[in-house]
Amino acid sequence: MLTKQSDDFSKWYNDIILRAELADYAPIKGCMIIRPYGYAIWENIQKVMDVKIKKLGVNNVYFPLFIPEKFFKKEAEHVEGFNPQVAWITHGGGKKLEEKLAIRPTSETVMYDAFSDWIHSHRDLPFKVNQWANIVRWEMRTRLFLRTMEFLWQEGHTAHATEKEADEMTKTVLKMYNDFAEEYLGIYCIPGEKTESEKFPGAKYTLTFEALMKDGKALQMGTSHQLGQEFAKSFNIQFLDEKGNKKYVWQTSWGVSTRMIGGIVMAHGDDKGLILPPKLAQYPIVIIPITYDSKIFEYIEKIEKIIRNKQIDYFIDKNEQQTPGWKFNEWELKGAPLRIEIGPKEVKENKITYASRDLLKKENIDLKQFDPEKLLNAMQKRLYEKSKEFTIKNIRKVKSYKEFKKILENNGGFIKAHWCGNPKCEKEIQEETKATIRCIPFDQKNKKDVCIKCAKEGKYEVLFAKSY
Amino acid sequence: MLTKQSDDFSKWYNDIILRAELADYAPIKGCMIIRPYGYAIWENIQKVMDVKIKKLGVNNVYFPLFIPEKFFKKEAEHVEGFNPQVAWITHGGGKKLEEKLAIRPTSETVMYDAFSDWIHSHRDLPFKVNQWANIVRWEMRTRLFLRTMEFLWQEGHTAHATEKEADEMTKTVLKMYNDFAEEYLGIYCIPGEKTESEKFPGAKYTLTFEALMKDGKALQMGTSHQLGQEFAKSFNIQFLDEKGNKKYVWQTSWGVSTRMIGGIVMAHGDDKGLILPPKLAQYPIVIIPITYDSKIFEYIEKIEKIIRNKQIDYFIDKNEQQTPGWKFNEWELKGAPLRIEIGPKEVKENKITYASRDLLKKENIDLKQFDPEKLLNAMQKRLYEKSKEFTIKNIRKVKSYKEFKKILENNGGFIKAHWCGNPKCEKEIQEETKATIRCIPFDQKNKKDVCIKCAKEGKYEVLFAKSY
Repeated sequence: MLTKQSDDFSKWYNDIILRAELADYAPIKGCMIIRPYGYAIWENIQKVMDVKIKKLGVNNVYFPLFIPEKFFKKEAEHVEGFNPQVAWITHGGGKKLEEKLAIRPTSETVMYDAFSDWIHSHRDLPFKVNQWANIVRWEMRTRLFLRTMEFLWQEGHTAHATEKEADEMTKTVLKMYNDFAEEYLGIYCIPGEKTESEKFPGAKYTLTFEALMKDGKALQMGTSHQLGQEFAKSFNIQFLDEKGNKKYVWQTSWGVSTRMIGGIVMAHGDDKGLILPPKLAQYPIVIIPITYDSKIFEYIEKIEKIIRNKQIDYFIDKNEQQTPGWKFNEWELKGAPLRIEIGPKEVKENKITYASRDLLKKENIDLKQFDPEKLLNAMQKRLYEKSKEFTIKNIRKVKSYKEFKKILENNGGFIKAHWCGNPKCEKEIQEETKATIRCIPFDQKNKKDVCIKCAKEGKYEVLFAKSY
Repeated sequence: MLTKQSDDFSKWYNDIILRAELADYAPIKGCMIIRPYGYAIWENIQKVMDVKIKKLGVNNVYFPLFIPEKFFKKEAEHVEGFNPQVAWITHGGGKKLEEKLAIRPTSETVMYDAFSDWIHSHRDLPFKVNQWANIVRWEMRTRLFLRTMEFLWQEGHTAHATEKEADEMTKTVLKMYNDFAEEYLGIYCIPGEKTESEKFPGAKYTLTFEALMKDGKALQMGTSHQLGQEFAKSFNIQFLDEKGNKKYVWQTSWGVSTRMIGGIVMAHGDDKGLILPPKLAQYPIVIIPITYDSKIFEYIEKIEKIIRNKQIDYFIDKNEQQTPGWKFNEWELKGAPLRIEIGPKEVKENKITYASRDLLKKENIDLKQFDPEKLLNAMQKRLYEKSKEFTIKNIRKVKSYKEFKKILENNGGFIKAHWCGNPKCEKEIQEETKATIRCIPFDQKNKKDVCIKCAKEGKYEVLFAKSY
C-alpha cells in the first residue's frame, strides 16, 4: 500500500519515487541512482532545453570537475557561501596532492580563469557558454531529486560589454526557464527577484522562479544570476572597447537541475502515484492487451501505426505474468499519461478504451476517432491549468503578522505581504515561522502597504513560504 | 607557423588542438577544457551513438560519481588494475569522512551492487543500461583527448542469463562501435580480441577496435568486455531461472570516450591543420564572403536556403576585420569540410566557388548544380577510403624478429606476426621494442606460422604496434 499524501507527504514522495523506479538510494549516504524511468525524463528535459539554450547563441563546453583551492578562494562572497558544502580531493594516484582540489559545487571560478585567457576585445563579446554536468555539494539533510550530494544540471555562463546587456541576458534566461516550466513541466511558476540574503553568493542579484507543491511548500525551480563585475575583477576578465579603453566584463550565470523532476512529482502526483506531463514522460502512451491472442496484437498494430505517425513514444505491456488490473495500478503508479486497453470487445467493435492519468475516467471511442496527439496535448494543458488554479488559490494576502502565522500553520502556500527591505525583519520572520521570502515578484502593481513585521514603509510586496 | 607533422608529430598534435580551439589546458595539471568547437564534435558523436545504443535495447541511467572503498575492493583483479589510478575524497562538508570515497575510474562496482537489488528472475534479464558520464583516472603522462585525468565517455553494462548471450552482446556492441568509426569518424579500424595481459581488469575477455594514426602509432578506439560471472559472484547478482534454480548472471561492459576526437585529429589531419569528417563537424560548411555589400549577402541567402533544405549546419564568416585569405587559412586550420567563397564574380555569373578540405582544390560551378549533401558525402567517403588505404599499406607481415625491429624503427604501423600465446614472449617484445599486441584480429584465415619471438608454434596471427 502507498502512503497517502494527506497522511505523510514526505513519505508519499519517497515511496512514489522508489516504487515508480524513478530513482533509488545509492550506497553512499546522500547520493542517488537515477533509474531508466527517471533518467528518461531528464533526457527529455535536456533535449528541449538544449535547443532553447542554443537559440540564445550559447555553445556547449566542458570544464574540469576539479577546482584548485586557490581559484576557489578568489571571490570572497563566493567562497564564503560555498565553502561549507565542498568535497575535497587530497590523494590521487597513490600520493598526497600538493594542493587539494575542490569538486565543483558550481563552475564560476574554474571557468572565469579561462575566460580571462579567451576574452580580449569587444569583438569577443558577448561570450556565451553552457555545460551539462554533475555537481557536488555536501548536504547533511538530503532528499531524492531535491537535495542530494551529487546532482545533474546545466550551468550557463556569459560575459557582456555592458551592464544593460547582462541585465537583459539574466532576464531572457529566466523567461526561457519559466516558459519551459509552464509548457513542458506543466507547472505554474512565479518569477521574481531574490532578496539580498537569498541571492547567489557573489552575484549582484538573482532572479528565480518559484512553484507551489501540493503540500503547500514552495520549490525554487531554477535561478538566473547577474554577476556584476566582481568575478571579472577577481579573475581579471578585461576587454578593449571600441575606443581602446580597457574594461571589465559584466557576467551572468544560470542553471536548472534534476531537482525539476522532484517538482514534477510534487506538483502533479496524487494518492495513486505519479502523474507525468505527456511532453516529458518516457512513454506518453501505454497499451495494455487484455488477452494475448494474435487478433489482439494485430489490432494493436493498427494503433501503433497511428501513434508512430505522430512520433509519440509508447510501450506495450506484454507481461503475461500479471493481470490487466495489476497493470492498470502499476501504470497509474508510474504516471503514464495515456493508458489504452485492448481486449476482444475493442477488437470486435473496432474501438479503443482509454483513460488519461489525471482524469482516470475510462472512455470508449471508435478507432477512427483516436487522435493521440490531441488527447495528450489536452492532458498537458489540464495539468498546467490545475497547477495554476491551485497556486493562485493558495496565494493569500495578509494584513497582520498574526494572520501571517495562522495561515502558515493552517494552510501553507504563498503568503503575500509587504516588506520594508530590511534583512533584520526577513531574518526574524524566518526564525519565528520558518518561512522565507521566496521572491519579490516582478509584478509590483498592487498599492503600497506597511511591512508585515515592523510596520514601517513596505517597499516591496513579496511572497513568503516554507520551502524545500 | 604550425609545426609540421614530419618535424614533430606530437607537437603538431598539441598545436592544432589549441589553435583550432578544440580544447585548452586546464589549470589542474593533466585536465583539459573542451571548447565549443571540440565539444560540438562530442555532441554529434553522442547524438548518433545514443540512438545506436538505444536500438540495442539499452536504457540510460545515472549512477553516483563516488564509490565507497569497500565496494571498490570486492573484485580482486579489478581493484588491482585500477587502484593506482584512483583519486580519493577524504573530506566533505568541513569534516573528515569515516570511509574515503573513490571517484569513479569506471562504474562496474557501484552499478553491480544495485544490479543485485534489481535482478531477481530470468524475467528481469537481459538487463541493459548505459550512462554518459565523466571519469577520473590519475594519469602521470597526459595528452589532450587521448589520456587526461578526467574524460567523458559512455559506459554500457548488461547482465544476461547465459554465457552465449553475453558473448553475443559483447560482439554486437563491438560491431556497432566499429561501424560507427568507419561511417562517422571516417577511420578504418581493425577489430579483434585483446591478449590476457591487455584485457580489462576483471574481464573474461576484451574485444577492441584499433586504428592507425598518421605517425604510424596505433590508437585503441574503444573496448567491449565479456565479464563472465566474476563480478556477479563478488556482488551477488543472482536470478531464478525458468526451472527455479538460482544462477549467477553473465555480464558485459563497454565504452568509448572523448579519446575518439584525438583519433579524428591524428587519422585525418595534415600540415595545414584539422580535417574534420563532414558527419561530425560543428559546421560542415563555412561560407566566406569576399566583399561585404548587400548583393553578396542576398546571393548567400540563396545558398543558405539550399543548405538548410538538406538540414546541414553552416557558418557564414562575416568578420570584416580579417581578409578572405586569412579566413581561408583559419578554416583550413579548423578543418571545415566544405569552404564556399562568394565574391562579385560568383554573384555576376550565378556560380559558387568551393573547396573540399581534403582536396584543397578550388572548384567553380553553377549555383544550380550545387548539391552540398553530395559534396559532403563524397568527402566523408574519401576520408574513409584514404584511412583504409593508409592502414592496409602499413600492415606489414614479418618473418623474423630482426625484420620486426627494423620495420618498427623505420616504418611504424602494424606488424603482423604469429605469436605462441605465451605472455612471456609478449612481455619481452614489449620491453625490447615498446610494441604491444594491439589485438588478435577476428580474421585468422592465414596459414599457420611460428612465434616471432620463440619460434614455437604460433597459435595466433596478431597485430603488434607502438600505441598511444
